[in-house]
Amino acid sequence: MEDLVGLCKRRGFVFQNSELYNGNSGFYDFGPLGSELKSNIKSQFRSQFIHARSDVVSLDSSIISNPKVWESSGHVGGFSDPMSDCKESKKRFRSDQLFWGPVKDEKGDIVCWVCVHEDDTEIMKKEAKKMAKKIIKNEKINVEGRTTIDISTFKDLTFATESDIQNIPSPESLKPTLTMPKDFNLMFSTSVGASSTTPAYLRPETAQGIFVNFKNVMGSSRMKIPFGIAQIGKAFRNEITPRNFVFRSREFEQCEVEYFIPPGDCWKEYHKEWLDFSKNFLLSLGVRDDLMDWDVHSGDGLAHYARACTDVTFRFPFGESELMGIAARGDYDLKAHEEGSGKSLEYYDEETKERYIPHVIEPSLGVDRVFLAIMCSAYAEDEVSGEKRTFLKFKPSVAPVKASILPLLKNKPELVEVAQKLYDELKMRWNVDFDTSGAIGRRYRRADEIGTPFCITVDFDTIEKEGKTVTVRFRDSCEQIRMPIDEVMGFLGKEIDGY
Amino acid sequence: MEDLVGLCKRRGFVFQNSELYNGNSGFYDFGPLGSELKSNIKSQFRSQFIHARSDVVSLDSSIISNPKVWESSGHVGGFSDPMSDCKESKKRFRSDQLFWGPVKDEKGDIVCWVCVHEDDTEIMKKEAKKMAKKIIKNEKINVEGRTTIDISTFKDLTFATESDIQNIPSPESLKPTLTMPKDFNLMFSTSVGASSTTPAYLRPETAQGIFVNFKNVMGSSRMKIPFGIAQIGKAFRNEITPRNFVFRSREFEQCEVEYFIPPGDCWKEYHKEWLDFSKNFLLSLGVRDDLMDWDVHSGDGLAHYARACTDVTFRFPFGESELMGIAARGDYDLKAHEEGSGKSLEYYDEETKERYIPHVIEPSLGVDRVFLAIMCSAYAEDEVSGEKRTFLKFKPSVAPVKASILPLLKNKPELVEVAQKLYDELKMRWNVDFDTSGAIGRRYRRADEIGTPFCITVDFDTIEKEGKTVTVRFRDSCEQIRMPIDEVMGFLGKEIDGY
Repeated sequence: MEDLVGLCKRRGFVFQNSELYNGNSGFYDFGPLGSELKSNIKSQFRSQFIHARSDVVSLDSSIISNPKVWESSGHVGGFSDPMSDCKESKKRFRSDQLFWGPVKDEKGDIVCWVCVHEDDTEIMKKEAKKMAKKIIKNEKINVEGRTTIDISTFKDLTFATESDIQNIPSPESLKPTLTMPKDFNLMFSTSVGASSTTPAYLRPETAQGIFVNFKNVMGSSRMKIPFGIAQIGKAFRNEITPRNFVFRSREFEQCEVEYFIPPGDCWKEYHKEWLDFSKNFLLSLGVRDDLMDWDVHSGDGLAHYARACTDVTFRFPFGESELMGIAARGDYDLKAHEEGSGKSLEYYDEETKERYIPHVIEPSLGVDRVFLAIMCSAYAEDEVSGEKRTFLKFKPSVAPVKASILPLLKNKPELVEVAQKLYDELKMRWNVDFDTSGAIGRRYRRADEIGTPFCITVDFDTIEKEGKTVTVRFRDSCEQIRMPIDEVMGFLGKEIDGY
Repeated sequence: MEDLVGLCKRRGFVFQNSELYNGNSGFYDFGPLGSELKSNIKSQFRSQFIHARSDVVSLDSSIISNPKVWESSGHVGGFSDPMSDCKESKKRFRSDQLFWGPVKDEKGDIVCWVCVHEDDTEIMKKEAKKMAKKIIKNEKINVEGRTTIDISTFKDLTFATESDIQNIPSPESLKPTLTMPKDFNLMFSTSVGASSTTPAYLRPETAQGIFVNFKNVMGSSRMKIPFGIAQIGKAFRNEITPRNFVFRSREFEQCEVEYFIPPGDCWKEYHKEWLDFSKNFLLSLGVRDDLMDWDVHSGDGLAHYARACTDVTFRFPFGESELMGIAARGDYDLKAHEEGSGKSLEYYDEETKERYIPHVIEPSLGVDRVFLAIMCSAYAEDEVSGEKRTFLKFKPSVAPVKASILPLLKNKPELVEVAQKLYDELKMRWNVDFDTSGAIGRRYRRADEIGTPFCITVDFDTIEKEGKTVTVRFRDSCEQIRMPIDEVMGFLGKEIDGY
């Protein structure tokens, strides 16, 4: 993971936001290459989820809306994390990420209590041991080596009782200075106009903007159910413990579709269809199949509004986590807005002559998470001519730079001129590089490291021999072929765009 | 203007945000067609300002940053509008939009004072007269017909003195109940983390995100001055009186370039170059040349940081207003961040061996304004076969729907099948429609009204005659040509993308 974060910064994919002012926890800036990669992910979503589907249209709703939207959707009342403060250190913790339990001596008597962050089991064990040592030392009892800590018996702090809380030590103060867990709303609030007294919110998801526009879209387009409305845009969550680089940040970008269907059992079929469609989409972006998995939520694991939810997960360096979710939300949202607004959101089916509130299937993906999964999938090392090589195996469609145009020698104007002409043509269609500096091998490596799939070299054959061929070098295999310079545009078109 | 707002809503270009909850003043949602048009404007910016220029790279920084960014930039201290409250009605006004002056009788004595919104001269005159009538009636003196109001002598409320304010009537209460003008910051504020006491801000412009990343971009790319960093993204301003549809809204989208140059007189040349480049860009999007103009700011009209600023203006239905600005900002911003952060932002020029703080040329455009200018430029009416036709003359590159594929008859499966096949091919590359419903003439009109440049009709010649030709109908001229179905993709490629 550290290698990846380092590469991201060094090569201009991702910077910590406000680094000049010592940062801004939970916010990131995408540099020249990251901005292109992100833009390509969104373009691919627009192309595959919207343009290529005759049953999906797009929407671009504002980030700030009338606060009533969030009252009806349940976010003002319920979109919160349980939090616990340490009265001594003034630090705040997500209670559902803290786990507590006893440290016992060999007789089974409790020596002390510990409370640690949930991460993976190994880290939890280590942390619990470290904390126990510190606490025991404080109490000047040396029982080291004879204590046992069984983290499988540890409990979520969220459900601690008043009497529990008097025993549980704060991870900061090591003393029982934690407050009872209390809900903390995750929406960022602001105030609109000059003297407004009611808060407005930055949207925590793009989905609600779609539901409240359902009627408007129905009235202005000629869509018939089943059909979907897709949206790409920023969303904000005031996470207390943003972590894992861009995976869980406070400002992020989503691509969501709300796909409206008739009530009844048909949702299962549509849910399955969107699962397959979504997985194919991720594969087409270069997310590695062997690192992806399904996580089917059911029963307790389901959000209150969902009938079913399947997550597409990805094995990140920090653990397996959600990349994309495909939820069957029933008619929960449209009903909530019907009730909240007092306006009918019914759909009239002209064929069956029925009137109903549509149900919804929601494929939803986090652009920043997909970005990270693509980076992880693309990261590769091998050996070329006896030297270690680090490169990024981006698919041509998402690669930030599509091709690098290289005149073999910088000081031969006749080579530079021909290469420049090719570059000038290609840059009208794609983001391409023109690189004249250094030996050709070094220029290849530079292109490899930022994941440029093709290097086009203009050499003496190009200007002297009939056929006017250039070499095209493939990033992954390092193989080279020769091709007439006139055919380069068509060749790249097929490889990058498919036409 | 009303026609345009109506069309925007009816055809799904722009909706009032949160319409379901009686709206949200100053915020708009872009419907299926508007979202495509907006996305096309941004793609064109990326293509022309970033990809096609070897001297510009892109950036995508976060909307919320460390508040110190806005302290250094001067926005916390100075980004404000003067405001005046009406103590009785509790309404708030922008003082620089209110003008006040006397109503005199035929002897030249002052009968009363009035205070009205600045709009154009005619509206101001009318409003002043209306207000005078109301006030005079209140005072039960009937001097109607003999009073004179000379609005050319009216003064901006911002500069009213304490003694003035005791005379000036509030436009709401008609009594002198206005407070002295006070500065009101236009940035939306919020709070990050659980217990933060310092406010954070939603960026009021994308530019500062570029300046604070200058060092990061320099360190990770191999750019040399002169070069630019471009950014596309949302910005927010808590306008007190949002108006003119999407022209002045509280949430909007910007495309900005900060182009870094050496100090000295060379800025004039670069400024001129970016002016021409920007104007060509707007023309390429279909903004009408005859409605555009230049507005050169100088002296008093210049922002404190600017050496020169030229606005590209557009004659909107509500008046001539700024579409895009090209400012020469000197080294104001980088110096401010150097001072604020205590870190050097100097550039070392390897050729001249000089060290300096770069100066900046900033082309900046509002996507929503360009959107509106394109809508206004495209709106057209004519007569076709004796019937009035309303259509949108979008350039193919920005048109939300590129082509509509029409089987001549809905109930002939052999026609529908061939048309469907063509549609399936085209939709992998563009946003295209497939329309089977109604007479062909009606379908043409439907496509015209949303600005679709090409209608491709599959008829019996396509399936029965050799050559397999379809008709291609051009929106503006209504002319039709026949072309082999296999050549449609290539033809549209040239027309829409230029390749």
